[in-house]
Amino acid sequence: MSEMKHPYLMFLGDVGDQLGAKTAQGIVDWRPEWCLGQLRLDGCQADLGIKDISIDDAVAAGVKTMVIGIVNSGGFLPEHWIDKITEALDAGMDIASGLHIRLADVDAIRDAATRNGRSLFDVRHPTQDIPTGKGTDRPGKRLLAVGTDCSVGKMYTTLALEKEMRARGMKVDFCATGQTGIFIAGNGISIDAVVADFISGAVEMLTPANDPDHWDIVEGQGSLFHPSFAGVSLGLLHGARADALVLCHEPTRTHMRGVPEYPLPDLKECMDLNLATARLTNKEARFVGISVNTSGLSTEKGDAYLAELEQKFDLPCVDAYRTGVASIVDKLS
Amino acid sequence: MSEMKHPYLMFLGDVGDQLGAKTAQGIVDWRPEWCLGQLRLDGCQADLGIKDISIDDAVAAGVKTMVIGIVNSGGFLPEHWIDKITEALDAGMDIASGLHIRLADVDAIRDAATRNGRSLFDVRHPTQDIPTGKGTDRPGKRLLAVGTDCSVGKMYTTLALEKEMRARGMKVDFCATGQTGIFIAGNGISIDAVVADFISGAVEMLTPANDPDHWDIVEGQGSLFHPSFAGVSLGLLHGARADALVLCHEPTRTHMRGVPEYPLPDLKECMDLNLATARLTNKEARFVGISVNTSGLSTEKGDAYLAELEQKFDLPCVDAYRTGVASIVDKLS
Repeated sequence: MSEMKHPYLMFLGDVGDQLGAKTAQGIVDWRPEWCLGQLRLDGCQADLGIKDISIDDAVAAGVKTMVIGIVNSGGFLPEHWIDKITEALDAGMDIASGLHIRLADVDAIRDAATRNGRSLFDVRHPTQDIPTGKGTDRPGKRLLAVGTDCSVGKMYTTLALEKEMRARGMKVDFCATGQTGIFIAGNGISIDAVVADFISGAVEMLTPANDPDHWDIVEGQGSLFHPSFAGVSLGLLHGARADALVLCHEPTRTHMRGVPEYPLPDLKECMDLNLATARLTNKEARFVGISVNTSGLSTEKGDAYLAELEQKFDLPCVDAYRTGVASIVDKLS
Repeated sequence: MSEMKHPYLMFLGDVGDQLGAKTAQGIVDWRPEWCLGQLRLDGCQADLGIKDISIDDAVAAGVKTMVIGIVNSGGFLPEHWIDKITEALDAGMDIASGLHIRLADVDAIRDAATRNGRSLFDVRHPTQDIPTGKGTDRPGKRLLAVGTDCSVGKMYTTLALEKEMRARGMKVDFCATGQTGIFIAGNGISIDAVVADFISGAVEMLTPANDPDHWDIVEGQGSLFHPSFAGVSLGLLHGARADALVLCHEPTRTHMRGVPEYPLPDLKECMDLNLATARLTNKEARFVGISVNTSGLSTEKGDAYLAELEQKFDLPCVDAYRTGVASIVDKLS
């Protein structure tokens, strides 16, 4: 995918609740300077906390792309959203969408893009020609977030690592593998939407050869212990050829997300299997930290939990949101 | 995918060598009674060893589907093949293809199928709505072939197991996960072509609940130790929820297929990782045999190799082609 151009106008349509705008909120949280305003239709129940602006205002302010970072029920595109999308194209903006439906599959949108010479980005639909993975060595360093489960803070942790490393003047890039991350990075590949044969190849494409002291910080997906998505996680691990791994965990989770019969793996067991499989493509792979989402615990209990893990695993253990990730970055040189 | 109807007419076009007809040959080897003839164009360099018949002869003989089980260079469809395909559709046959290109993407073919009310099967392109895997228990038993590498006899072994079990009157089905297997079974899902998020879900769909004494014999793909395709293999392993595993191996292979830097895994190591990961979804998973393609060894060396493995692992060790798989089936009850 070519790079999306920012700044962004955040289109919320008439999404029914704040959760439906979770992707849009993530973009505003991590790239506030790119998000010049939100466009909401009558009945919209979400609010990103940024100013409401019109398409004309957005163009005047220099917006390059209107972002549809929302989930609508049923996956179809309501007629009155289509009108707003073609209006934005006619006004000179590109459109980027995280919807399941492809923008170009809607005739009116495709026609408007063509007549205005604008680009349509469907972050859920990889369009590149992806080769199969080769597992070959390449210069540059890579860090990958792996998890005990889905949705345990892998994106948050890797974005926090990138921010901290950039602040220290290190050479670093965040490599997005999911839709929210792609909007935040402006590029990336939605790994779970790639055809199965090309998972590791897509990650190799995303993390090419670089300067020996450059770090690619790769957003992880799923878990080797998730019965639905472990194949994606393994392909990601092999393709990333990671030098450094960070384990992400949510300690109050009672079972694997979406599959109530499956308990979370033991942390040690999870780290062991990730290391054993990572070493197929990188013998030097090692864990450099554990990132725990302690928001479900009191501050006291959260701190105690991190201290306990730190002693048990002899690794920096952080809550990326609450304590920051500096102690993990200290391990990367 | 709905079921392809047999008998088949095997269309070879003007494929340039015998290897290009490998898929077609596999179908003839395993389902000779379904393959009523071959249709070759001028310049065809392959021969399936069955009689050459015309489209009219095929229809008269009761053929229901013309199968394009060949690889053409470049992946495109030559104009003079298109004419033969529309001719077959006009004569009342369905078309099944293993080409990369989708039949329905060729206007003349789509139009001919529509006007004749015929079906087009693209075995490389799964069309079903596949749910994500759930990892839930279901009645019926399942056996999965896993490998030290790609192309080490997983399809051959599982087809031989199905044949032997059927001959003994056991309740059994072969579950195809690759294109040749799909033509042989008449249905199946090309697992490596499924979108990554749905690998295990596709396998669950392929091996649904069944009688407690029924065996689904699942064709494996790739290897957990192949840096290009391990994600597919892991999703397959989790989705199959296999009770029984058979390890497939080719002892003269000097490196993993397509990646010269990667040596083959040690057999013990390969079995250990397969067992450890299989047990996420089925705690009872166990190996019931090893199937070795000994065609690269002398009979004497092959026999010695099998005897050595049998002693080392205390499991039936066979060459599915040369010794048959009876000793493995003895372990399945």
